[in-house]
Amino acid sequence: MKPPIYLDYHATTPVDPRVLEAMLPFFSEQFGNAASRTHVFGWRAAEAVDAARAQVAALVGARSPEEIVFTSGATESDNLALKGVALANRDKGDHIVAVATEHRAVLDACKRLEQDGFRVTLLLVDKHGVVSPDAVRAAITDRTILVSVMAANNEVGTLAPLAEIGRVTRERGVLLHTDAAQAAGKIPLDVEALGVDLLSLTAHKLCGPKGAGALYVRRGVRLSPQMDGGGHESGLRSGTLNVPGIVGLGKACEICRLEMDEETARVRQLRDRLHAKIAEALENVFLNGHPTERLAGNLNLSFAGATAEAVMATMKDVAVSSASACTTAAVEPSHVLRAMGVKRSLEHCSIRFGLGRFTTEEEVDHAARRVAEVVREVRAMPPMDQLAIVAARDRC
Amino acid sequence: MKPPIYLDYHATTPVDPRVLEAMLPFFSEQFGNAASRTHVFGWRAAEAVDAARAQVAALVGARSPEEIVFTSGATESDNLALKGVALANRDKGDHIVAVATEHRAVLDACKRLEQDGFRVTLLLVDKHGVVSPDAVRAAITDRTILVSVMAANNEVGTLAPLAEIGRVTRERGVLLHTDAAQAAGKIPLDVEALGVDLLSLTAHKLCGPKGAGALYVRRGVRLSPQMDGGGHESGLRSGTLNVPGIVGLGKACEICRLEMDEETARVRQLRDRLHAKIAEALENVFLNGHPTERLAGNLNLSFAGATAEAVMATMKDVAVSSASACTTAAVEPSHVLRAMGVKRSLEHCSIRFGLGRFTTEEEVDHAARRVAEVVREVRAMPPMDQLAIVAARDRC
Repeated sequence: MKPPIYLDYHATTPVDPRVLEAMLPFFSEQFGNAASRTHVFGWRAAEAVDAARAQVAALVGARSPEEIVFTSGATESDNLALKGVALANRDKGDHIVAVATEHRAVLDACKRLEQDGFRVTLLLVDKHGVVSPDAVRAAITDRTILVSVMAANNEVGTLAPLAEIGRVTRERGVLLHTDAAQAAGKIPLDVEALGVDLLSLTAHKLCGPKGAGALYVRRGVRLSPQMDGGGHESGLRSGTLNVPGIVGLGKACEICRLEMDEETARVRQLRDRLHAKIAEALENVFLNGHPTERLAGNLNLSFAGATAEAVMATMKDVAVSSASACTTAAVEPSHVLRAMGVKRSLEHCSIRFGLGRFTTEEEVDHAARRVAEVVREVRAMPPMDQLAIVAARDRC
Repeated sequence: MKPPIYLDYHATTPVDPRVLEAMLPFFSEQFGNAASRTHVFGWRAAEAVDAARAQVAALVGARSPEEIVFTSGATESDNLALKGVALANRDKGDHIVAVATEHRAVLDACKRLEQDGFRVTLLLVDKHGVVSPDAVRAAITDRTILVSVMAANNEVGTLAPLAEIGRVTRERGVLLHTDAAQAAGKIPLDVEALGVDLLSLTAHKLCGPKGAGALYVRRGVRLSPQMDGGGHESGLRSGTLNVPGIVGLGKACEICRLEMDEETARVRQLRDRLHAKIAEALENVFLNGHPTERLAGNLNLSFAGATAEAVMATMKDVAVSSASACTTAAVEPSHVLRAMGVKRSLEHCSIRFGLGRFTTEEEVDHAARRVAEVVREVRAMPPMDQLAIVAARDRC
């Protein structure tokens, strides 16, 4: 059976064959432990890790590769950034500012810190999902130690005005963290120009492997490690380094750095084509997210009168996801759409299309045709029948 | 240049080609996110993870695959076990018992918990590195919540009397964790028979990939997650699952389960051959670790009068490691050898040979010859010259 067209690049991405090729020698041949300092197997592994560290540093504009800490992914990076800064800077304050539309990794880490006695302010966003620098300024108090603002939203793709926010945090002497899981490799990010002190990224969102991520930590930022044992990564993250994964992350970052401009233009053109074709074929389709200031590969649409779950269950040949991800038995509405003030009637009717490096024009044209067909079909059903389709699916 | 003979299997292992073959489809073809519940890419990823979970569960005798939590490796598993149990069971007590010869991941996690107000008792070992069940019994108080005893030591290979210790912890109603990073896949481990409640393991020590590990958590054991965000792994470990890594871990566990008996016999015979040949060629060679109750692939020898660093720097064609790993500028003595009461004059003269799946008789014979030659050469040098060799090396 032919696999469906993959338009879920925000969830994860295929590994670029060039990335896999770079990783392969490090599984069974150059398989050393980068901490083994007594033989060539270890030295080669350490050299490969150093090269990857420089590649990651270059993508985000870090002054030194030593400012890159390798982790298992963005969730670990976010946890290390938030808990690490909070616990190491308790003498300075106990207040953290984040945004209501952050990823769960940031929101849940904040919840944990609240249990530990920290106070968290979650900022509201406008209808496009944008948090204003003035709101950040107003939220900062003398007790604030950290502001965390995601660079690009994972559901609607909206970009944050990071440079302006960075000016505010600099002015107030507060650290700025950004979850750049979706943004890294997709938009230019320069931690120096943006005034960002900590930045989370992960390989599997930019055509690298799952299981490898990084946290940029500006030199001088105090951080309490969250994983102890051995003192790897300058004592900030212990544990044997995932050498093939790190090599893959480095290569993926390098490809993004070199090809970002061209790829962004191509993906944006495809995304706009998909949007135009759907809007042409269907009425009552509403864009979620900022009309211009958003990721080139993101298209989040609400189809009035068509439950997203029913559309996805019917449209088996196109793989997309719903903003209202059903992670539990109950289908919960997206906290992002809710924060943006999306109408209740549209909350369960939104579908996220994520385009990326391997998306083709042919795929986009097929997807647009199918979306139009299936949405029309679902809209024609009574609401109870739409629910029945969802219930009858194999999963979820 | 021909790579050296690899005899450092305790540090890390090459990925078995069968393991890599199982992983490969999950990088660029079946690349779905196991949490994507709306399309076949996600379903296939989730199925692969489920299958791997069952393979890991089978290796350690877990009653249910749901008792396996995937992590990034043994360091994370150890941190999750110790901190997770401590923080979730604070109402029951504040005392933890571990062993002086544990891996840094356990010792450093204990140190962190001490900073958080927990009390830790580190048990002594005998000259073979064995901790006695009676010592465990004597250390347990009404405030004890957890005992952590490594299944096999990473330096000298000594096996712990886990079943007896498990009887003690059961009797006293205390949880038992074991760091089985070195033991898993090398000796039979049955959490039910042993009375183990938490068990850490990692893929890269058993011919699987770096970056994938697991923690067995007996059903009903309360654990506070250390990484928040999204609630993956029943809420115990958030973060996108490393699908290829997990598939590799599962396959590596399955191979170990099926081939352990045969492989152990073969590796033990090679290890004994290496030991016999070295002992035949050289005087004043002392075995560290238990003479019989130790890992089949482990041979830790002290060569009186020959600094380990000088031996390794000279013997470029055989990759081994020193118990006194130089993780910092200064060469520190091994905390394991020190705990076993190894003489000061032998502390810096010990070399760890680690044999494994791909070690051949030819390699062993070559290594034995080279060890004899090089140790003789180094012994003939004045101590200052031995130090000069180390200083002149490229690294460390």
